[in-house]
Amino acid sequence: MNFFAMTRLLGLLIAVIGATMFLPVFWALYFNERVWSRLFLSSLITLSSGGVLFAIGSLRPQKVFRKEAIAVVGLGWLLSAGFGALPFVISGAIPHYVDAFFETMSGFTTTGSTILADIERLPRSVLFWRSFTHWLGGMGIVVLFIAILPFLGVGGRFLYYSEVPGLVPETLTPRIKETAAILWKIYLGFTVAETTLLMFCGLNLYEALCHTFGTLATGGFSTKNASIAHFDSVFIEVIIITFMFLAGTNFSLHFRTLRRKSLVYFKDPEWRAYSFILLAGILLMTINLWLNRVYSTPLNALRYASFQVVSIMTTTGFSTADFNQWTPAAKTLLVVLMFIGACAGSTGGAIKVIRWLTMFKIARYQLEKIYRPRTIRKLKIGNTRIDSTLQLSILNFFFIYVLIFILGTLIVSLFNVDLISSASSVAATLNNIGPGLEKVGPIQHYAHFPYPVKVLLSLFMVMGRLELFSILVLVMPSFWRS
Amino acid sequence: MNFFAMTRLLGLLIAVIGATMFLPVFWALYFNERVWSRLFLSSLITLSSGGVLFAIGSLRPQKVFRKEAIAVVGLGWLLSAGFGALPFVISGAIPHYVDAFFETMSGFTTTGSTILADIERLPRSVLFWRSFTHWLGGMGIVVLFIAILPFLGVGGRFLYYSEVPGLVPETLTPRIKETAAILWKIYLGFTVAETTLLMFCGLNLYEALCHTFGTLATGGFSTKNASIAHFDSVFIEVIIITFMFLAGTNFSLHFRTLRRKSLVYFKDPEWRAYSFILLAGILLMTINLWLNRVYSTPLNALRYASFQVVSIMTTTGFSTADFNQWTPAAKTLLVVLMFIGACAGSTGGAIKVIRWLTMFKIARYQLEKIYRPRTIRKLKIGNTRIDSTLQLSILNFFFIYVLIFILGTLIVSLFNVDLISSASSVAATLNNIGPGLEKVGPIQHYAHFPYPVKVLLSLFMVMGRLELFSILVLVMPSFWRS
Repeated sequence: MNFFAMTRLLGLLIAVIGATMFLPVFWALYFNERVWSRLFLSSLITLSSGGVLFAIGSLRPQKVFRKEAIAVVGLGWLLSAGFGALPFVISGAIPHYVDAFFETMSGFTTTGSTILADIERLPRSVLFWRSFTHWLGGMGIVVLFIAILPFLGVGGRFLYYSEVPGLVPETLTPRIKETAAILWKIYLGFTVAETTLLMFCGLNLYEALCHTFGTLATGGFSTKNASIAHFDSVFIEVIIITFMFLAGTNFSLHFRTLRRKSLVYFKDPEWRAYSFILLAGILLMTINLWLNRVYSTPLNALRYASFQVVSIMTTTGFSTADFNQWTPAAKTLLVVLMFIGACAGSTGGAIKVIRWLTMFKIARYQLEKIYRPRTIRKLKIGNTRIDSTLQLSILNFFFIYVLIFILGTLIVSLFNVDLISSASSVAATLNNIGPGLEKVGPIQHYAHFPYPVKVLLSLFMVMGRLELFSILVLVMPSFWRS
Repeated sequence: MNFFAMTRLLGLLIAVIGATMFLPVFWALYFNERVWSRLFLSSLITLSSGGVLFAIGSLRPQKVFRKEAIAVVGLGWLLSAGFGALPFVISGAIPHYVDAFFETMSGFTTTGSTILADIERLPRSVLFWRSFTHWLGGMGIVVLFIAILPFLGVGGRFLYYSEVPGLVPETLTPRIKETAAILWKIYLGFTVAETTLLMFCGLNLYEALCHTFGTLATGGFSTKNASIAHFDSVFIEVIIITFMFLAGTNFSLHFRTLRRKSLVYFKDPEWRAYSFILLAGILLMTINLWLNRVYSTPLNALRYASFQVVSIMTTTGFSTADFNQWTPAAKTLLVVLMFIGACAGSTGGAIKVIRWLTMFKIARYQLEKIYRPRTIRKLKIGNTRIDSTLQLSILNFFFIYVLIFILGTLIVSLFNVDLISSASSVAATLNNIGPGLEKVGPIQHYAHFPYPVKVLLSLFMVMGRLELFSILVLVMPSFWRS
């Protein structure tokens, strides 16, 4: 392991995080909040810590290989949350460090679970930082999974439709930079568009920005206790639904649409399945809510069903209703959608539609193999062939995912948390959703959990966000041996 | 498809079931129950139906190939439950056919879920039939998975440690018969042993037999409303724990121990893992129940914990306590054990220890592959190499299993059954356990479910019992095309 090279990269990352912490300082000055000096201090500490790490790492020039890159991804997210928690702690908004760490991890991983019982009590500048961690995390994930990881051969290049023909080391850095720059522009474009539209609906710049961050990162932090229900506006809901949907789409598709100037969405099997599941989910949910008289008119049922289905499946976690009070089937459906998740290469989390699609195909082929043992057929998704190595790695991902969910639920329940709250808190964090059911329902929060559980759930957030492996390898002793 | 050959085999099976229906007639005469004539009638109907099918099937001599054999397994279990329900319906003990079908399927699949709110109200002869379906089903499964399926190449021969060197068609039938005969003797030996021991503890022959059937088949039907709690005897509990453990062991190991006259158990990786998980589960459960003051002394906690852990993990489903009142962690642990299940080639159900063991190894290898992409290592369980084809089929089994669980829970919840009852009723039937949690807890029953749900749960029982594929292929159109 080239620890100096790793330290250098991590130092750079922390310094960047520290620099972005100046933004809430401006908002504090704008809102005349006395907390500005403490936010400034947090920024300085982070920036200088990053600088020191960078300096230490630069002492000895080293190369970054595959292993170092993987470790930096996992450690980078952990350190970002570690330093990102400082504005909450130093400002006094969230006094306990574990709570602040949970909240920040929830932000950077675009989860949206909160330990805040009363969000509106916090200074607006601090809430801006809270929402901004979403935006940074969402951007980071898109760049990581589309521009960086495919080059490292991690996570299955196929899953992210990298347009790069093959691994050519000398052209690696410029290529990554170029791809990242375009993704950055798309992300920024969406940000400007949604913010503008929300301001047309009467939100001020601050509120519009914060909710745009929560939407595009499929995060779910709101500045209001009642989340999007606070505004009670169909227009705002439609705008947010649209942008949640776009954020849950593979950014490679946006990228290619932009480059080829033609809508490539409909040609993509994952996107088609993603849209189909969303529509089917909305239909089923609307009918169920209407028939069971949760809402008196079909139109009202449609309004709340569509928002919640899109919010949960894109793993955003905004809410316009207390779905914990809905019917058993509605709740089960939401939990199922939590595990399906959005498209690969989007800001959404969970298992991802492409994996489910592939596993369904594998299941059909394997069933046919029982009575046609000699027939050999090639498994394809669109035009991409999925060989048995890739099939194995996708199914193995599913196994580990389910395993973590089961073990997590068992550990949380050891703290005498009821079954549904245990299971749904793990589901909500591992899948980067935000709210779960019962004690962690949409009008509830995570404050009442013991600190060890909060730490555990924070780890689930980052595991889910980084698709397990970048975190899991960190605890394997053989990873650290050269 | 050679339908005549299939009809012939199915006719034979139904006739055998019909013949065994004479046994409850004897008990009715012994107990002076007027129901004897109706039981006799059920037997005659079943026997003659089987005879007619056999005669039709014999009209044209046809061979049985792989496909026919697979179809006969699935259809055989469905038809057995279909005819096996007759004694319940005709005797009037369970008036509605769907209820009787559910109860019989629960018997033959060794599940043990019941729609009876008051078991003791039924004639003892009818209850004998109810318990006897367990015994038949358990025997059928052992013979099927150890002696028959490995010859057909279904279900992964490796999983069942068949001692047969290769597929030699001409020696197929004598070999199957020989293996089946030895397994039959082992099963019968256990039956005599447990019945005798239970009679030493004061049970009469009838009660001893019925509970032996429930134990060895890892079924769980009792003749008492309170299940094993009725007897409140540590001796009886220890005997039943011992035989549940033996029934959950791969019968190939009993077979080989008998043949080689040495204890081969400890050499088997699956058996070691099975024993380890049981001991760890008992330990964890005991500590949890004691610390949370569910039981006041550690010894009492140990008593109830050990019985319930063994009962659930072997997928028996007997109970000595209302574990629905236990702590969240205790309940979560039981649900986890439900999905782990017993050893392959035992009478136990669920996913089976060997599959979990293999999936754990796959997960470790795949993780290491991320940072050591060029290292090729062979995956082994004991001395058996698990190639990628087998790895794929095991992981695919896991995926379909989880998928059925999820879809099942969603469908049951559509009938406005709360989440825990929905999920645990599917878990309890698919894994062939018996009782679940909340509305289907150990002192509850399945009577209150709507009929469509009862049919669905019956299908889950047989799907789980036959390890999915023999049932799933039946609904694939391409299976029936030649």
